[in-house]
Amino acid sequence: MNASVFLADLTWPEAECRIGAGAPVILPLGATEQHGHHMPLNVDVVIPTFISERVARATGALVAPTVPYGNRSQPRSGGGPAFAGTINLSAHTFSLVVRDVIVELHRQKVHRIVVLNGHYENVWPSIEGIELALDAVGRDEGSGLSILRMDHWEFVRPQTIDQIFPNGFPGIELEHASVLETSLMLAIRPNQVDLGRSLHDGPAKFRPYDRFPRPPVEVPPSGVLSMTEGASAEKGEWLLEDCVSRMVEIIKEEFQLGQ
Amino acid sequence: MNASVFLADLTWPEAECRIGAGAPVILPLGATEQHGHHMPLNVDVVIPTFISERVARATGALVAPTVPYGNRSQPRSGGGPAFAGTINLSAHTFSLVVRDVIVELHRQKVHRIVVLNGHYENVWPSIEGIELALDAVGRDEGSGLSILRMDHWEFVRPQTIDQIFPNGFPGIELEHASVLETSLMLAIRPNQVDLGRSLHDGPAKFRPYDRFPRPPVEVPPSGVLSMTEGASAEKGEWLLEDCVSRMVEIIKEEFQLGQ
Amino acid sequence: MNASVFLADLTWPEAECRIGAGAPVILPLGATEQHGHHMPLNVDVVIPTFISERVARATGALVAPTVPYGNRSQPRSGGGPAFAGTINLSAHTFSLVVRDVIVELHRQKVHRIVVLNGHYENVWPSIEGIELALDAVGRDEGSGLSILRMDHWEFVRPQTIDQIFPNGFPGIELEHASVLETSLMLAIRPNQVDLGRSLHDGPAKFRPYDRFPRPPVEVPPSGVLSMTEGASAEKGEWLLEDCVSRMVEIIKEEFQLGQ
Amino acid sequence: MNASVFLADLTWPEAECRIGAGAPVILPLGATEQHGHHMPLNVDVVIPTFISERVARATGALVAPTVPYGNRSQPRSGGGPAFAGTINLSAHTFSLVVRDVIVELHRQKVHRIVVLNGHYENVWPSIEGIELALDAVGRDEGSGLSILRMDHWEFVRPQTIDQIFPNGFPGIELEHASVLETSLMLAIRPNQVDLGRSLHDGPAKFRPYDRFPRPPVEVPPSGVLSMTEGASAEKGEWLLEDCVSRMVEIIKEEFQLGQ
Amino acid sequence: MNASVFLADLTWPEAECRIGAGAPVILPLGATEQHGHHMPLNVDVVIPTFISERVARATGALVAPTVPYGNRSQPRSGGGPAFAGTINLSAHTFSLVVRDVIVELHRQKVHRIVVLNGHYENVWPSIEGIELALDAVGRDEGSGLSILRMDHWEFVRPQTIDQIFPNGFPGIELEHASVLETSLMLAIRPNQVDLGRSLHDGPAKFRPYDRFPRPPVEVPPSGVLSMTEGASAEKGEWLLEDCVSRMVEIIKEEFQLGQ
Amino acid sequence: MNASVFLADLTWPEAECRIGAGAPVILPLGATEQHGHHMPLNVDVVIPTFISERVARATGALVAPTVPYGNRSQPRSGGGPAFAGTINLSAHTFSLVVRDVIVELHRQKVHRIVVLNGHYENVWPSIEGIELALDAVGRDEGSGLSILRMDHWEFVRPQTIDQIFPNGFPGIELEHASVLETSLMLAIRPNQVDLGRSLHDGPAKFRPYDRFPRPPVEVPPSGVLSMTEGASAEKGEWLLEDCVSRMVEIIKEEFQLGQ
Repeated sequence: MNASVFLADLTWPEAECRIGAGAPVILPLGATEQHGHHMPLNVDVVIPTFISERVARATGALVAPTVPYGNRSQPRSGGGPAFAGTINLSAHTFSLVVRDVIVELHRQKVHRIVVLNGHYENVWPSIEGIELALDAVGRDEGSGLSILRMDHWEFVRPQTIDQIFPNGFPGIELEHASVLETSLMLAIRPNQVDLGRSLHDGPAKFRPYDRFPRPPVEVPPSGVLSMTEGASAEKGEWLLEDCVSRMVEIIKEEFQLGQ
Repeated sequence: MNASVFLADLTWPEAECRIGAGAPVILPLGATEQHGHHMPLNVDVVIPTFISERVARATGALVAPTVPYGNRSQPRSGGGPAFAGTINLSAHTFSLVVRDVIVELHRQKVHRIVVLNGHYENVWPSIEGIELALDAVGRDEGSGLSILRMDHWEFVRPQTIDQIFPNGFPGIELEHASVLETSLMLAIRPNQVDLGRSLHDGPAKFRPYDRFPRPPVEVPPSGVLSMTEGASAEKGEWLLEDCVSRMVEIIKEEFQLGQ
Repeated sequence: MNASVFLADLTWPEAECRIGAGAPVILPLGATEQHGHHMPLNVDVVIPTFISERVARATGALVAPTVPYGNRSQPRSGGGPAFAGTINLSAHTFSLVVRDVIVELHRQKVHRIVVLNGHYENVWPSIEGIELALDAVGRDEGSGLSILRMDHWEFVRPQTIDQIFPNGFPGIELEHASVLETSLMLAIRPNQVDLGRSLHDGPAKFRPYDRFPRPPVEVPPSGVLSMTEGASAEKGEWLLEDCVSRMVEIIKEEFQLGQ
Repeated sequence: MNASVFLADLTWPEAECRIGAGAPVILPLGATEQHGHHMPLNVDVVIPTFISERVARATGALVAPTVPYGNRSQPRSGGGPAFAGTINLSAHTFSLVVRDVIVELHRQKVHRIVVLNGHYENVWPSIEGIELALDAVGRDEGSGLSILRMDHWEFVRPQTIDQIFPNGFPGIELEHASVLETSLMLAIRPNQVDLGRSLHDGPAKFRPYDRFPRPPVEVPPSGVLSMTEGASAEKGEWLLEDCVSRMVEIIKEEFQLGQ
Repeated sequence: MNASVFLADLTWPEAECRIGAGAPVILPLGATEQHGHHMPLNVDVVIPTFISERVARATGALVAPTVPYGNRSQPRSGGGPAFAGTINLSAHTFSLVVRDVIVELHRQKVHRIVVLNGHYENVWPSIEGIELALDAVGRDEGSGLSILRMDHWEFVRPQTIDQIFPNGFPGIELEHASVLETSLMLAIRPNQVDLGRSLHDGPAKFRPYDRFPRPPVEVPPSGVLSMTEGASAEKGEWLLEDCVSRMVEIIKEEFQLGQ
Repeated sequence: MNASVFLADLTWPEAECRIGAGAPVILPLGATEQHGHHMPLNVDVVIPTFISERVARATGALVAPTVPYGNRSQPRSGGGPAFAGTINLSAHTFSLVVRDVIVELHRQKVHRIVVLNGHYENVWPSIEGIELALDAVGRDEGSGLSILRMDHWEFVRPQTIDQIFPNGFPGIELEHASVLETSLMLAIRPNQVDLGRSLHDGPAKFRPYDRFPRPPVEVPPSGVLSMTEGASAEKGEWLLEDCVSRMVEIIKEEFQLGQ
């Protein structure tokens, strides 16, 4: 008996069995994007995949393959495209991928879907992808489809933020490759974090607008938008605990999953 | 001599003259979206158009016609599509409109463009539209194009927020149809605000995720996401003053406009 | 009680009330396009918006925000893109805007829609937009949707043409920025017409084909395709009277509106 | 030596030779659309293909394969989709076909292209297709591309119309499957015209607007929008002579072809 | 009584009659592509059109107009775009054409459709076009639609191959412009084949990968991917007999056509 | 010093260093698709990722994140969409993903790209994606871009096939989830193969056409299109050795990589 929560690790009869038994499916959305000198380009893939796995274990859900390319990184939230290794999809392409996967899941009688996002710039095109999927399969009761869209950073409790930032929180927008993401990676994949190289330039002071085609000069050269000091695996576990426990609770309630 | 800053009020020889003299063009992005019981559906058109006009007067810029339909309203930021009168474009359509207008302005030798947005859900597809325009005309120095993208609420100074909310700011996400927008409308179009009908349900307590196809039950029935008490024309003028003065300063600096 | 016929001037409860009572919605389609030395770029926005307003007053309809950018201006019908200030959408983008707005109106239970067009080059992509909307919502009886598409110049009675052009009518294709449009603007917005600058080059003698990428040399330098002499506010009122009265009659009949 | 003017009848070395020698290419645009009880669905393919062939013989041009499916037939100009056998493309698809073929011709160093249209509803999406091709290959002198777009009915001289309609011309819009097209088919493919079955309902009296999704009741049941009486092969030859001679003259002038 | 099997040769009442009687419709998919020094660019149009005609005669089907432009020719299967006269559509455009035609046939109550393909590179975008059509009209029983997709070369019996290639078959991929296609053309249009110019370079030895943007050097300069020796009209008849007889049998069985 | 060949495992400065030194990038294309009762849905992801890794080690290349969703599975080559767990992208979406990633790599000055495909149905839309990328970045020498597209099964030597199938090869089309793929998985991920459950139905006998919307009845219920007997890890190593050694040789030659 295959106990994996990853859909792609199952054979089709195993998938049929789990889907037939009503398993929700979690679709993690990632990105290939710079995360400073101390973390690899896969941070936005690793974190939502790991959270999805934990949530799936607690809810009986399956985890679909993570989309590894995300919507265009922006200078003010992810450093932007000028950093080597950042590989973006356009918003339209990204939303079509989300649409197609949801439509296919629906076709296979998966009616309860969680879109679990790990990259800030995916927020809007993932909403669009869901809307396009609903356009395709219908929005009325008949379609039976119920979709939850979650950005993992929205699930951290204020108390946890206070605990992590006793001197005040710089704000979620600047948390790219900073304390929160570094702590999560230290908890999940410590061997991929090299704190000795955690260069940063202090909290970025972005002007309140975007500039094209050349990004503003305020982008920190390190790619870290805030600070990395104080990151720890323990704090990462606090964050994971917040995310997972609240996501599990919500999914159980929304999808009326039994105990 | 036609002194209007609105491009559409000019004849073509007047437009040619102003563009030839190097006038930047401001493209206001609006929406047709519910704004509670006390304000009309045009709030997100009126505000950015008015700000654009003032900024244009101070910078010698021209104001292109406001795009009156915006990207899909979301329950957590604008009430969502369930309110009567909210008419959305899909993200792809909206970004194509922004792309086409920018490409046309470039074709007409307008090289300095300000995209001035007044609707929260337009943030991302306006970025996409600008990127698509750059794909079309080229990103290198040769294109000569320089684009600034501004969301007006980002230009309010913290001091002003403190002045308006002496008891603490509920946060910008909940400011839909609330004190800030109501104050702005009281300053710009007082006759379209009926404070006597400014029903609200207190600050919305949204769960930290989206639900499709049916929006979450936490959407306030009034459509006002926070409060309306304390809104005044005077506060609206403070807000306008912040936006306009800082935008003018930035545009002059970025576009190297003389005194 | 808000008596405006403009949808965007209503609050959402007012919109709900009017739509719930069966008000048809008129969607005016405009353009930002040169109209000679004597009229501004907004002519194709002003005229259909004004006609829509009058028709709405007489039928109980609502007027949605006018689409201010139109399909590509062509040399033989609007002077083409070479004139400063003409800002075009591509046909695909324009038809997607029309599609999205109609689909949204349908979603909001508006079943009777009038697409009222004021720009010649919008004729075909507005048809396409309507077809795409029908593809999306369904064409059978179940959708309940009934759409009328009207180009205002088709509603002028032959007698009125004879009255305006006692020496013969140059033909509708050449009427760009000429007697008819100038008269309409003199009736609607006289302060935006400067007859003293109404340069024209006589009726354009276009060759019977299109040339790309450079337009034919026959495009009149003034941008006026025929003549402007003889334009008057009085004639504009005749034209408006023709349009409005016949449109009202047709809308009442088609939508079976009572007296 | 292969003397055919049809590109598809050549081998690739023959095509290379002719293109290398500077032959322009004519792209005929057709449709599969009802043409009354007396003519087949192929009228809009047969006529532009035949005219293209004659024009090519006189100018040294090549004729590319005719696009046999056209943009959506409309009730007021072609009877509309309700007639059996009318098979439409959407405007977007049609314009992409035109774009792709032109881009390919340009890639093969064909720089002088004539788009020769035989179906009324193709006018606008063929313009769009050409514009999209120019977007793809560039509009400046460097592309070397020169495109002429011709609708064959625009080339009939007024004298010929007077000769054919001594009692007055009902207008080109109503000439669908009527005297002009019937005469042309009698000249080109008499065996496909059965005048004995040329039912018609007299000149259609269309109301001046479109109705969706159900077409107006005024569509003549025969599919003939005007009359068929008086059609003859001789008149068809007059029409062909007008078209061909003027097109040849223009192509020679525009493309600076020698004698 | 019009006995033609070509839909476009019928009048609309004739089409209505045949469709009403349940005639399936065959949609031939072709291409305009090089076929060596000895055959014209129209081979991939001529062959599927001819086979469709024969199959239609035997099954009571109608033949829709052949799509004359195909999906991008590839170096390893058709010589690729470098040969003069090869005019490709992009895959997306081609699949939209297939989609639109099928959707239109369905709208006209044609429920049994055969897509009969004559160009190797059309295989995949024709599948996509059919899928897109099913997305549009629905996949359930209610749509009533049944579509068969056939590539004519799949219908040749192994015995026939053995008979034609007594020394062994080089494989279908290399059969471009080679013995099979040449034999078919000798049987169908002998006057368009010039065996005296049937240059070839022996069976192409392609490396097992694609190279972009410049095709691999192994493309035979002749455009013939294998050999032409041994082609004959008689062998062409064998091939046609295989295709037609098996297609007829399958269509009768699948569509439950009587005797 | 990070020795990983996987781009996403690098930090951005490491990526910059490797790309700056001229490392080619391999983009593996996978799918989530049924592979019988004995293998998981990830086979088409695992195999090309593993081959890419080995090839990268031998050539100094980097491996971009594998695209985990592939183009629509077809009944005759992959079982089709009816099997649980098969999640398809449409061809257009898939080709846009390939386009976007290549365009981004080019923007980051990666000029030598290998697209390494592991899913049969990806062949054509990956070609299209590459073509669309070339449309975007330009095809001339200036772009500097050189792309190789490889399907791993094309690299198996005939001798190896003979060794594996002493009784004759059923053909590559039927090798879905059969001896070749099973052997490869036994070599790469033996713990994900359960030979005890390797149900198969013997070589599938597909009719030579596709049927829509319901697939043909000949699809083997097991999802295995041929046989699984005889699969072994040793044979998998033979296959890997063929692929890797030949790919390495070609990449070195094509990209002129030194020793």
